Amino acid sequence: MDKLERRDFLKKASAATLAGGAALVAGCASPKQQEAPTVRSTRTYEWKMVTTWPPHFPILGESADMLAQWVEEMSRGRLKIHVYGANELVPAFEGLEAVSQGVAQMCHSASYYWAGKAPASQFFAAVPFGMNAQQMNAWILGGGGLKLWEELYMPFNLVPMPVGNTGFQMGGWFNKEINTVGDLKGLKMRIPGLGGKVIDKAGGSPVLSPGGELYTNLERGVIDATEWVGPYHDYLMGFYKAARYYYYPGWHEPGTVIELFANKNAFEQLPKDLQTIVRTAAARSNVWTLSEFESKNNIYMNKLINEHNVQLRQFPDEVLQTLRKFSQEVVDEVVETDPMSKKVFESFSAFRKNVTGWSQVSEKVYYARISL
Amino acid sequence: MDKLERRDFLKKASAATLAGGAALVAGCASPKQQEAPTVRSTRTYEWKMVTTWPPHFPILGESADMLAQWVEEMSRGRLKIHVYGANELVPAFEGLEAVSQGVAQMCHSASYYWAGKAPASQFFAAVPFGMNAQQMNAWILGGGGLKLWEELYMPFNLVPMPVGNTGFQMGGWFNKEINTVGDLKGLKMRIPGLGGKVIDKAGGSPVLSPGGELYTNLERGVIDATEWVGPYHDYLMGFYKAARYYYYPGWHEPGTVIELFANKNAFEQLPKDLQTIVRTAAARSNVWTLSEFESKNNIYMNKLINEHNVQLRQFPDEVLQTLRKFSQEVVDEVVETDPMSKKVFESFSAFRKNVTGWSQVSEKVYYARISL
Repeated sequence: MDKLERRDFLKKASAATLAGGAALVAGCASPKQQEAPTVRSTRTYEWKMVTTWPPHFPILGESADMLAQWVEEMSRGRLKIHVYGANELVPAFEGLEAVSQGVAQMCHSASYYWAGKAPASQFFAAVPFGMNAQQMNAWILGGGGLKLWEELYMPFNLVPMPVGNTGFQMGGWFNKEINTVGDLKGLKMRIPGLGGKVIDKAGGSPVLSPGGELYTNLERGVIDATEWVGPYHDYLMGFYKAARYYYYPGWHEPGTVIELFANKNAFEQLPKDLQTIVRTAAARSNVWTLSEFESKNNIYMNKLINEHNVQLRQFPDEVLQTLRKFSQEVVDEVVETDPMSKKVFESFSAFRKNVTGWSQVSEKVYYARISL
Repeated sequence: MDKLERRDFLKKASAATLAGGAALVAGCASPKQQEAPTVRSTRTYEWKMVTTWPPHFPILGESADMLAQWVEEMSRGRLKIHVYGANELVPAFEGLEAVSQGVAQMCHSASYYWAGKAPASQFFAAVPFGMNAQQMNAWILGGGGLKLWEELYMPFNLVPMPVGNTGFQMGGWFNKEINTVGDLKGLKMRIPGLGGKVIDKAGGSPVLSPGGELYTNLERGVIDATEWVGPYHDYLMGFYKAARYYYYPGWHEPGTVIELFANKNAFEQLPKDLQTIVRTAAARSNVWTLSEFESKNNIYMNKLINEHNVQLRQFPDEVLQTLRKFSQEVVDEVVETDPMSKKVFESFSAFRKNVTGWSQVSEKVYYARISL
């Protein structure tokens, strides 16, 4: 689907929604007439949430479904959210436009998918050699990150919030060993965001495919390599059938934030209690999501290694050092050409410096000396 | 206050509450008669939450206040929670009895304070050389921990849930250097839970003081040393005025879970939407709390070192190795004498093994090779 076709698609979807009844349009509500009026509003809202994930996809899709359920329960049915998998309502990477225009009221995704529209969005998902899950949450929730994120999404008529985290990721699936950076040359690899630009610098060709198409692309040789998430997800995707070497560490995504954003008008038209319900459900999903990844990854790592003969490999120091240098260059380039990226990255890197100082006597020491 | 006095106190508090009106008793509700009846119940509930922390204490007390606010907002005033600091309604360490008996409907605390009543409770707060915040959440929420915790609290008529985490803690404040385990001999140190038993094994005298009394005890020499939380809290407590050496790592509390528990009858009498609101608010508080500690600790660590000449010290390997051995012995003793502790620790240690396997290719590598 090219740009023009996509725009048509969105227009049609938007028109269809409008034709389908005002109740489904962003922020428009259908008062339940059958109920006696009370002091408290009983206005109900029906929202659509599009996602970047296949329908009911483990953890990511599941958490979107659970969020909708929690919101419905807490609001006693006053806010109903219908969750759509990628391509069920709009294509996987059309969530931003769809919610911006009110085709849907919400999107569950990862913000680096919108790098083409807002380069600074990448800093709210994953930065190569950046911060892990605990640190990203601390920056966004306790270090001023959310305010900048809101500022960034304002022109798109969107309100963003964190809704999950994948935790530290794996480096990806390859069919040859990566002994030097030279081994990345010519490689067509699925890798989004800033990590993709780093692979580009290393002479590879980064490709952005939605999750639903990844396995087929890898199996058919449309791509030579792919990163995705971690052992649990990667096992379910079946990558071990199409690639042999499984690399760590995931230098490009140390703790990828899953985002939830709402159409700003729709969100602001919600009464205060429903706004708080949405924000609180998002936070519950945040801790649930990370806990699921953290509890399942090792089980599936063992399956991959013991049942499917996957070869676990660690990137050599030389490779990581070069990728770190490239990452710095990539970030510098983004920051030089985009004032908002500069502003966001200044906050990001000041916070990283701060939190890394603390980790020297805390988490780093935990992993090195306490948890053996 | 001795045991008998405490029991009297609780009885009186309970009687006072009963006399004060049925609306304040666990689970009893006052239907709002001024509202027209609707399909949805408009019954309101007024709850009391006791805490182990000084009133409005930074992060811990603040998060209890915020939780009450979120619950009130989300429920549109149908569940109002009044938060009491330690000793405002019942003494700091009487929360379990108070909520069990319905003097209050909720308590915000840390479960190792109830070790005398339920030894296994310690495993849901902090285990020396155990799991950190991310891993504890994963065990409790994604690894079966919560079910065991509920089973443990059932005989007390309580429903527990995680509501926060302090993150990795510091080793504590001392007025002499700790170069060998022998330096711990004879030391009166405030340290709760299993860590306290380890200090006992090392020849020290563990003391359990509530936060509100700690500084005075340290300053007056009632105790020689204390651990508390981390740089942010420890700075606010003023410990740097009474002790010179600040040690890391906090081997005894790698990621202490803050707990919320409710009187079981009261909780079960809440309609489903209010139950979900409480659980969801607790999860939001969980991620908020850890993010606050993570974002503030380094700032205050710098203040302690640069403005107050605090001497930062690392426990030598030999000390940690001996404390690790003692910790294993302490856990073995608890597990041998208490079947529920055995059951809980089996789950805990199986999960720790699992998650530590994953950390070898993820967080451990992140701190060692990515975040420099």
